[in-house]
Amino acid sequence: MFTPSDKCPRRDACVRNGKGLIHMKDLTDQKGLYDHGRLFAHVTIDPGCSIGDHPHDHETEFYYIIKGEGVFNDNGTEVVVRPGDICATGYGEVHGLENRGTEPVELIALIVQE
Amino acid sequence: MFTPSDKCPRRDACVRNGKGLIHMKDLTDQKGLYDHGRLFAHVTIDPGCSIGDHPHDHETEFYYIIKGEGVFNDNGTEVVVRPGDICATGYGEVHGLENRGTEPVELIALIVQE
Repeated sequence: MFTPSDKCPRRDACVRNGKGLIHMKDLTDQKGLYDHGRLFAHVTIDPGCSIGDHPHDHETEFYYIIKGEGVFNDNGTEVVVRPGDICATGYGEVHGLENRGTEPVELIALIVQE
Repeated sequence: MFTPSDKCPRRDACVRNGKGLIHMKDLTDQKGLYDHGRLFAHVTIDPGCSIGDHPHDHETEFYYIIKGEGVFNDNGTEVVVRPGDICATGYGEVHGLENRGTEPVELIALIVQE
């Protein structure tokens, strides 16, 4: 099934007590992932905004960076992430992502459950 | 865990008897998906190349287009796909994707199993 970009559901949310509103475009839902996952989305973080730090256990979240440059909290260590980098967080690890730059940061987020 | 782009595994393959070689950059493996999926990859289709038509049953494959313009076989119907479009194929449906243009087509591919 083909779904054009403008028909995808979009929502804005404060994520894990981060800064500002994060833009989420859902690419499927939990049923589309056969209940093995709970997120597959194109996420945009505007300058000055962030996804707050939070842990993942019994599930893994992937951030695949496709545009911009952000500061990723990799379980306590700050790393600058750029397009093409992949971040995987699970097994009780903590992550967060902040846009300290001047251009939006865009990523594909995927959460797969154990 | 942060993995910079240049450390991701890459491979080239003829996919489902399509035209030419498709470039695959794996973003995780089957274990990283808790065995609920078998592919999460950044895929590049050069001009003149294609992923051949094939079915998916007991699993769904998503193509999320991030660059370029391709011709998607949506279970028998041709559709032009562009960045931001999402294509989901499962439940016995057939898909394929051909690059008839002059620029590479890039997409995120995800296969989730029932």
